Amino acid sequence: ARPKVGYFYAGIDENNIISKKLKSKKVSEIMSIPVLLTEETTVYNAIVTMFLEDVGSIYITNNGYLSGVVSRKDLLKSTIGGIDINKIPVGMIMTRMPNIVLANPNDSISEAVKKIIDHEVDSIPVVEIELKNEKEYYKVIGRISKTNIARLFVELCGE
Amino acid sequence: ARPKVGYFYAGIDENNIISKKLKSKKVSEIMSIPVLLTEETTVYNAIVTMFLEDVGSIYITNNGYLSGVVSRKDLLKSTIGGIDINKIPVGMIMTRMPNIVLANPNDSISEAVKKIIDHEVDSIPVVEIELKNEKEYYKVIGRISKTNIARLFVELCGE
Repeated sequence: ARPKVGYFYAGIDENNIISKKLKSKKVSEIMSIPVLLTEETTVYNAIVTMFLEDVGSIYITNNGYLSGVVSRKDLLKSTIGGIDINKIPVGMIMTRMPNIVLANPNDSISEAVKKIIDHEVDSIPVVEIELKNEKEYYKVIGRISKTNIARLFVELCGE
Repeated sequence: ARPKVGYFYAGIDENNIISKKLKSKKVSEIMSIPVLLTEETTVYNAIVTMFLEDVGSIYITNNGYLSGVVSRKDLLKSTIGGIDINKIPVGMIMTRMPNIVLANPNDSISEAVKKIIDHEVDSIPVVEIELKNEKEYYKVIGRISKTNIARLFVELCGE
């Protein structure tokens, strides 16, 4: 039997529907507020901030623009590395630009999740690009993490 | 127009299809291999294991059965807490049974993700229950984490 216009057979197109739905959602729809610190913050204070804000990564800025990222893993490594975490600034142990994976608020969620998986990170900063003297600067406007994805998953399974 | 049997209108049932698909998958289909240590392991060695295995949580056993969980957060807290991480056993700082959220291999993935979100944990141990003298013991057979969920998400968006 040939399906009428506007109807289609579920068995065949089921995966297409899911894929289309997940691809149509944008990063800006599910992103969280980013936690930002400056490069001069001590490693100890970055750890305290991580506990207070309960996030897995903190984004580091210099003159208001993204310059690095520190994760729980980076901080844990530094605490057993024999450095003085009360003196060393977080700028010394962070992963520095341009070695950071970024998302755009208009990216599809599926693109962002793919980046998170491919680069084995817990979250990626959502940025807006500003041009100054022909150089690109990144303003951090959000954070998209595995938690956001898991929450979306629960929502899609919704009651 | 009334849809024929076997066909239905996409606009209305789209969310149902997604929900049904996500609910039909079982934890056992996407779970990872668990990383296990005994209670006597030092905190320092637990941290080293966490880096070597690159996991967010380690499950702790006693006589082969689940007795606790340590997360990156627990380990980070202990490194700045002024204890001797080379001497203190992980059993002293772990979250102890019965305060641990568990998954069954036959649970739907949607149930497991809901537990991860509701209890704000990165992963939950997948266990099989063994009865001994009318007491329940838990054998750890897997691990289900936000990473597994994100990977499933990428797969569902698949090419």
